Parts: sequence; structure tokens; C-alpha cells
Amino acid sequence: MKRLVYPSPDEVSEALARPSAGTADIDNIVREVLARVREEGDVALREFSGKFDGYAPASFKVKETELTEAVQYVPEELRKAMSMAHSNITAFHSAQLQDAVAVETTEGVRCWSREVAIEKVGLYIPGGTAPLFSTVLMLAIPARLAGCRDIILCTPPGKDGRVSPMILYAASLCGVTAVYKIGGAQAIAAMAFGTETVPAVYKIFGPGNRYVTRAKELVQLEGIAIDVPAGPSELLVIADDDANPVFVAADLISQAEHGADSQVIMLTDSKEMLEKVQREVVEQVIKIARSEIAGKSLANSSLILLRNIEECLRVSNMYAPEHLIIATSDPYAHASSVVNAGSVFLGNYSSESTGDYLTGPNHTLPTSGYARGLSGLTTGSFMKKIFFQEVTAGGLKNIGPATEMLAAAEMLEGHKNAVSVRLKYLSDEQN
Amino acid sequence: MKRLVYPSPDEVSEALARPSAGTADIDNIVREVLARVREEGDVALREFSGKFDGYAPASFKVKETELTEAVQYVPEELRKAMSMAHSNITAFHSAQLQDAVAVETTEGVRCWSREVAIEKVGLYIPGGTAPLFSTVLMLAIPARLAGCRDIILCTPPGKDGRVSPMILYAASLCGVTAVYKIGGAQAIAAMAFGTETVPAVYKIFGPGNRYVTRAKELVQLEGIAIDVPAGPSELLVIADDDANPVFVAADLISQAEHGADSQVIMLTDSKEMLEKVQREVVEQVIKIARSEIAGKSLANSSLILLRNIEECLRVSNMYAPEHLIIATSDPYAHASSVVNAGSVFLGNYSSESTGDYLTGPNHTLPTSGYARGLSGLTTGSFMKKIFFQEVTAGGLKNIGPATEMLAAAEMLEGHKNAVSVRLKYLSDEQN
Repeated sequence: MKRLVYPSPDEVSEALARPSAGTADIDNIVREVLARVREEGDVALREFSGKFDGYAPASFKVKETELTEAVQYVPEELRKAMSMAHSNITAFHSAQLQDAVAVETTEGVRCWSREVAIEKVGLYIPGGTAPLFSTVLMLAIPARLAGCRDIILCTPPGKDGRVSPMILYAASLCGVTAVYKIGGAQAIAAMAFGTETVPAVYKIFGPGNRYVTRAKELVQLEGIAIDVPAGPSELLVIADDDANPVFVAADLISQAEHGADSQVIMLTDSKEMLEKVQREVVEQVIKIARSEIAGKSLANSSLILLRNIEECLRVSNMYAPEHLIIATSDPYAHASSVVNAGSVFLGNYSSESTGDYLTGPNHTLPTSGYARGLSGLTTGSFMKKIFFQEVTAGGLKNIGPATEMLAAAEMLEGHKNAVSVRLKYLSDEQN
Repeated sequence: MKRLVYPSPDEVSEALARPSAGTADIDNIVREVLARVREEGDVALREFSGKFDGYAPASFKVKETELTEAVQYVPEELRKAMSMAHSNITAFHSAQLQDAVAVETTEGVRCWSREVAIEKVGLYIPGGTAPLFSTVLMLAIPARLAGCRDIILCTPPGKDGRVSPMILYAASLCGVTAVYKIGGAQAIAAMAFGTETVPAVYKIFGPGNRYVTRAKELVQLEGIAIDVPAGPSELLVIADDDANPVFVAADLISQAEHGADSQVIMLTDSKEMLEKVQREVVEQVIKIARSEIAGKSLANSSLILLRNIEECLRVSNMYAPEHLIIATSDPYAHASSVVNAGSVFLGNYSSESTGDYLTGPNHTLPTSGYARGLSGLTTGSFMKKIFFQEVTAGGLKNIGPATEMLAAAEMLEGHKNAVSVRLKYLSDEQN
């Protein structure tokens, strides 16, 4: 890790620059996948699955029996742990359901809004070496709480055509309505446009590689909503002398193991802490299985000594980390100064990894500085608000003349006229 | 308007197809504008403003005096009408501010979320023949209520270098912090990347032409949040025999006057109503100033006779209109069946145009079927949620072992280890 002692603002900016995404142009490939799946449906899906995933099944849909039998392959202890996660995630996401907003803004003008589930949602779960069942929980639980009718899930199978039983079990547990063995940009295309097998959805959620991310961005331009843009994982830790350097080092490594493009930062006001954490990182990183990956992302990462904790908070707000740990003597007071961050962990025992699985808030969070303008996922991300208004005859007498005046000033005579014909009718009726 | 009597599902789909946006490729122009403003700042801004708006000022920023003097050019009656709109919009958008969510999901695991204003937001207001001051109100009022610190506004000046005093007055009224005389894609570029004059913002709001819309889409890929994608305006009216055909025709025309690519639809279960509305549209449309524009969009538009109101609601949910008027004998009952729409108007006196200015809910709404997955703007659109969690030592004993198990199953040893080092410490401490 880089080490900066009382750096200048420019040196801080340079150290906090996110590793840039590869510049290789994947647009042509993704555009072809989208166009061909849209045009040819399952035929194209089968071709791309064979080409990219080495698997081209007769049917993409996971059979009911495969889903119900998955439970047998998941050890009981693991099922208990998932069940605890399910319970905590449900508790936090239930509390996010909002009461309807209703206001009589002028006498006779009643306005309200209703949160309504998005009817059809699609969840994408990446394949690869690790089965990300925790993301199934984090997406499907709020979808279910929101009341989404169709909750479909796409995930690439292994070359043997199988999907991890842990993913299938998590999907069953959370009420996913159908699972399809499809990965990559072709899965996003299938959920966006629909095929003979896969129904089209209105919003697509979930992380993925650059092809998946680019496909989501492109279908967004076609009217399909998407969740937060996915980027490499990040952690920023603010530590003073009250922090435990062993814990801080373990936290930094835990995020660094996500991928070579992850970034972790420690800000501290203590020179001693800086040195202790540096030593601990070196010592701990060699012990984990993914030490090579973690080593690469640690090279993009920095330990920075600043004058005081206020300055640490200012720099953190500038960086807008996906995850922020505040390991200081007064984490509550410092938390109140946080204005840009995805999810914040207070005190010495709140490891970021507890938040990935068990604390309750969603782990799908804005990366790459998006936390300045975006939130992590909530139950509301699976719903939309519809506005309603009822203007009574009396209400129209109250707001009609002002509407006519404003419409006329905007030179929209038709808008004015829609009020005028009504006011005339009411006035004629009175006489 | 096209007229369909008991059409087949295919005929309905065809009638409801949205007019397609022009296929001309504007990408190259927009990309060049974005790249050059990013690189050259004010110099490029000045060049593009001269080229596209015929105006290249020494300074883009509207002077304080120009803002304060605007009031003199706005008639008192109009100011009163704006003030009424301000009051109603404020009432509805204040009610949207949410209480914090806080849950102890497991003993010793406290989770909460806080809604925090986006610090810097940019509002875009189009130029052209009509001064869209109502959009200033609809964007700046919730920005202010949310607590955004910097609320900047860009709008193109006329060739005389002036911005409508109505827009300046509305901006002052709503607490906009700075106004810049810049339009088009170059305004979006300036707000996204910042220049010597214009500060960079984190989220950009507001309607615009195809260049503006495309620029917003492209800067979104660079980490700038944007509001709902803008498309041509739409209205769907569901009318039974209780509706007033004069009102319905006036409503259809009021949306048709927005632009040649607008679309308006009436669904009814009454053959008589269909005929009356058709006659009224023909009679009324020739009377308004923008009758040529309205005539063009009416050509894309349909009056459709269906078997009953339930079928009308089903078709409306399929179409997902930006605006929906329910002019039936029992609009409340029918409103409860609405699942896809932006903003809904109930009963004979709720003209859509009252919602553009005065009822209270936002008039920035999802078009083009986006209402299936997206909401109109709310105060929350100017804020983001930050999640917080505090796991105490006791809490970690409760959720730590499950976290270790789930992390191990996902093959993330570093994640597991961040918990293990803490549990070990706690266990050592106890002994």
C-alpha cells in the first residue's frame, strides 16, 4: 500500500483516484448480443451460451424439482446462517415500506401518492468460482417485500450445466418465481426484450462483469430501468488511536480480495496507527487464499496520515466510498458528518463483512463516487410511486384561474383551454 | 385521430405504439461537445453557445442585479399565480420527506438509514418560444426542501443574450443559488464536468431536446446521476358515459399541443362518447394557436372503443401513460386498479393542465412506458439514503459465526477473517 504522510490536497486526490476500467472496446460484442437476442430469441441465447459459457442446453429454465431438491445439497448449518441473514435483511427492508403521502394542497385539491410494486423484475447473479447466494438474498427479499409479481433470476451454469445448489436454495427461500441458466450480456438481453423462454421484465438488478454492466447500460436507453451502476468494490476506514490495527488490516484485506481493481483506503490522525496497520496488512495478506488478488488491489490503495479526524471526514466525503468504517473514539459524533457514502460501519466490532451478509441493510451500493448522488438498494428500488390528484368543482374554482394565467404565460393555450371549458361549464350551470 | 372500434389485441398494440424518435445520429455532435467542454472549459462553452444559440457572452453567470430586477418585469397577477403554485408544490413535496428508518435486526446489531441532500444539483430549463418557469418551480422547490447546498440552473438565452424574467423570477423565488446563460449539450457538459465559471454537480435534472437528453445519458455513464429520461409528452383518458366530451377533447388537445411527437389516447366503453369526443376534437383544435403542432400529434393518436372499463384499465396499465385521466362514474374505485402510470387525475374537473402547474405533485414524470419501472420526481430524488450499522461486541457474538460460515461458503476467506480476528480478540479478552 502507498503511504502518505500529511500529503498536499493534490497528493490526496492522486492517491484517491479510482483505478480506471480497462479501455478495451466491448461495445461491438455487447451490441451484437443485444440485437441478436432481440431478433432471434432462444436461438441466439443458445448460441451465445455455448460460445461464452460452454453450455447450450435444450431448456434454460431450472426445473421445479431441481429447485426443491437443492436443499439436500446445502448443509444444515449453512441453511441456519442463511435463515438468520434472511431474517435480518427482512427486518430492515420491511421498515423501509412507506406510508402513502396525502395532502389537500388547496381546498378541493386532494393529492396523494401510492407506492406500487414493479410488476416484473429480473435479477442477475454472476457465475464464476464463488456462488454469490448472498446477492440472491439482497435482491429477492426486497423484491418480495415490495410485492413484485414476477421475480426472475438469471445466472450462468458451470460447464456441466449445473447452477450451485446454494444459489437455487437461496432463490427458493426468497420466493424467486423462475430461475434461468443464462449468463452474460445475453441474460440481460433476454430479460430486457423477452424470448420464447424468458419473459421480459421492467427493471433489472444485480452485479456482473463489464459485459453485463455495459448491456444493462444499453438496455436502459431502451426504456428498461436498472439498479445502481456496478463498479469495483471500495472501502475507506477512518481510524484514530482507539482503533484496533489487527481489525483495520483485516477489513482492508477483506475488500481488497474482491478483485484486482478494488480499492481500500485508511485515513488516520495517528502516525502510530498508520505504522501498525501497515505491518498488519503485510502480515495478514499472505495468509488468505486470494492473497494474489488482494495484493494487486492493495497496490492501488493508500494509508494516509492527516492532521485530525475532521480532515479525515472531509476527505472521505470527497471520495464518497461505497463502504466506510469509522473506528474512532466517538463514531456516532463522526457519523453525523458523513454526507457521501454508501454504507457506514461504526465502532471496532462492525466489520464490513457483517454488512455483506447479516446486519440487514442492502449490500448493493453505489461505487466509483456515485454515492454523491445515489443510494444503495432499498425496498423502494423495487417499487415506483404513482401520483394521484382529484380536483373537485370547488377546487377548480380555487386553482383554475391561476392555472389559466400560468399556462397563458407559457404560451400553452390548449392547457389554458382545458381549464376554461370547465370553468365556463360551472359558471353556466350556476346561472 | 385514428378510431378503433372493438379492436383485436394486435390492433390495440399497433395503435398504442409510441411515435419513434428520429433516427438521425446526433451522437458524434454530442460526444464532441462533451469532450471539448471537459477539456477546454469556458472557451469551448463560448464557442458552442455562439454556434448553436447565436450568443457568446463575456460571462455566462446571470448577475445578482439581473436576478433581483426580474420581479419588475413579471406582472403582479402572474406573481400571485406563481406564489399559489409555489405553496401547493411545497405542501406536497414537504410531505414526502421521510422519517429515518431504524431497526435492531439482532440484539447488538443496530441499523438505520439517513436521507441526506445531494450537495450539488444542476437544473436544466430549455429555451425556445415559451419560458418554462413552471419547470423551475417543479425542480427547485424539492431541491430546496431536500436541503441541497448548491442549486444551479442553466438555460439558453435568446439571441439578445437575455433570459426570460419569468424564469429568473421563478429561480429567485425558489432559492436557486446561481443561474447560467448556457443551453444544449454544452450546458449538460458544463454541469457534469465543471468549467472555470460553472461548478460541477452530482445530479442533473430537467427536460430538453434530443441533444440535451443524449448528453445526460452519456454523462450518466461517467458517474453523474440524472433524473428520469425525458420523452415526448403523453396523455391517456379513460372515459365512460359520465365524462364530459368537451372536457375530454380539451384535455387531449392540451397534451397534443406539446409537440408533433406527443401522443394522446382515449379509451372508452361508450360508442356515443367516442363519437362526441371525435367531433369536439375537430371543432376545438382549430381554435388554438398551436393547432398545427396539435394536428400532427393527433395523427399519431387514437380513440378506442373497448368492451368495458376494466378492459380500458388493463390496456392503460399495458401502455403505462405519463398522464392518465379517469373520467368515469367511479374514479376512486378505478384508480385502485392503476399499476403503471406517472400521474393520475380523477373525475371530470381534474384537467391534466392543473397538474402541470398547481395541484402539487411533480410534473416531471416517466414517459415512453418508463412508468412501468420508474416514478416521477419527488423530494427524495434530490437526496440519497446512507445506511448505517453498529455491531457491538455482543452483537458480533450473535452474528459473527453466521457471517464466517456464509463468507466461507462464498469462498471469501478475507471476509471471514475480518470477523474471526474480532471473535478471537473477544474470546482472549474473556479468558
